[in-house]
Amino acid sequence: MKIAILGAGSVGTNLHHAFETKGIKTELIHARPLTDPTAERSYSEAVRLPQADIYIYAIADQALRDVISVIHAPKALHLHTSGTMPIDVFGEDKPHAGVLYFFQSFSRTKMIDDWSSIPCFIEGKNIDDVAAIYSLAQNLTGHIYEANRHDRERLHIAGVFANNYSNLMFRIAADLLRDTRIPFEALLPLIDNTAAKVHSMTPRDAQTGPAQRGDLAVIKHHLEVLRTMDNGQATSNNLRGFSAEEMCEVYQLLAALIGKKHNHPIPPTGQQ
Amino acid sequence: MKIAILGAGSVGTNLHHAFETKGIKTELIHARPLTDPTAERSYSEAVRLPQADIYIYAIADQALRDVISVIHAPKALHLHTSGTMPIDVFGEDKPHAGVLYFFQSFSRTKMIDDWSSIPCFIEGKNIDDVAAIYSLAQNLTGHIYEANRHDRERLHIAGVFANNYSNLMFRIAADLLRDTRIPFEALLPLIDNTAAKVHSMTPRDAQTGPAQRGDLAVIKHHLEVLRTMDNGQATSNNLRGFSAEEMCEVYQLLAALIGKKHNHPIPPTGQQ
Repeated sequence: MKIAILGAGSVGTNLHHAFETKGIKTELIHARPLTDPTAERSYSEAVRLPQADIYIYAIADQALRDVISVIHAPKALHLHTSGTMPIDVFGEDKPHAGVLYFFQSFSRTKMIDDWSSIPCFIEGKNIDDVAAIYSLAQNLTGHIYEANRHDRERLHIAGVFANNYSNLMFRIAADLLRDTRIPFEALLPLIDNTAAKVHSMTPRDAQTGPAQRGDLAVIKHHLEVLRTMDNGQATSNNLRGFSAEEMCEVYQLLAALIGKKHNHPIPPTGQQ
Repeated sequence: MKIAILGAGSVGTNLHHAFETKGIKTELIHARPLTDPTAERSYSEAVRLPQADIYIYAIADQALRDVISVIHAPKALHLHTSGTMPIDVFGEDKPHAGVLYFFQSFSRTKMIDDWSSIPCFIEGKNIDDVAAIYSLAQNLTGHIYEANRHDRERLHIAGVFANNYSNLMFRIAADLLRDTRIPFEALLPLIDNTAAKVHSMTPRDAQTGPAQRGDLAVIKHHLEVLRTMDNGQATSNNLRGFSAEEMCEVYQLLAALIGKKHNHPIPPTGQQ
């Protein structure tokens, strides 16, 4: 079985490394967008390839259609690795096609060595394609889920909340400790515990804190402390820190939302 | 050295268990608020105690002053375990006093066996008290920080962001996957990775995602998907799920905040 990986960005180079580690030979082909001056050479390199059985397009969303269009291999299995692009980016000239979406942050400078816990979301044009993609993914991970475009969209947004926005909460927490004698690392056991808890209970059951208890006195006190924090360290449009106003706005919105879900209405000012 | 722990709630019973495990004998005394019918017996039990060298008041904030007032031991070291109460809750009749605040969620039904990574925040009336409290805490953990009331207040709010609010993000993510074929456990590697990253880099450097990149097209698309999600599963005042409006409001506020900190202004609707 011959696998060609088109695209030598972070996903392509990591996939190449991963398959090679498993003893599966792959060709890694630099496929750059058409606007790139080296594109002509790269595309002709791809077109001149001896036919492969599987083509994996690890290409930026915007360039995907262009690169797919230069490959002519109707019997091969064609896969893209994007969480957002639909399966129908592969036209009728590619009857065997699908999606191989690994849900992880990749970097070109640090190869991932252990893929076994990385979730992989797959979709295929037909049931045989799904089976073939499943079997390909199984070389790298045991966590494979079928997911159509609608599911992948939800997953992408869920990832923004679970990763980007929880990280923002850690940032605000770090900022709150900046003018104290307490280093950020003092929060790490709590952060680890919060992540560990949702392995064994639902996030809803894991919810604690003043808003979950409806403790208006503590919420009011926290908002008072936050309001006094504009001590010059943070201006509202500053890369470093958060302003009192920004912290109060986030605190209030999230406290109110938790309160509502636990039948404890929390007034906007935190007042009783 | 004789240690008396007043209060057999979750903190008191866990402290009792922890000291006993370390071979340090402690007396655990049920000390209940005065409103409790069993209070009289409990208080007299406390008062009748042979004098201890250290009294640890693991008592609810509201009852702390009352319980402290019945103990007469001017030479002993008196410590409370609250993150929010000031040190001056101990009057002049208790010249040796301070705070021993373990930053962890305790439960009365499941004793903590390994205290070594739990951060402990201490404060003392004078330098000798600080040294004595430090040496007491050292029996249980290597992570001891001096923190005055101002620092403990900040810490408490930081904990709300780092724990309660990041957990809320996991809840919203779980809700987004509910009508898909993707189980919540598919998000666990991402959640673990997000927590692990801030062990080796600052949360600010760990920030990724569409708002950090200023990717308005993705943000706009996410908001469009979120707006269509009111599919009857969630009503705005429902314990189970989040409404489209609630998810959009959180998404927009947090995307705008991240965008601002990375010099990518994000308009309220996500429109370009």
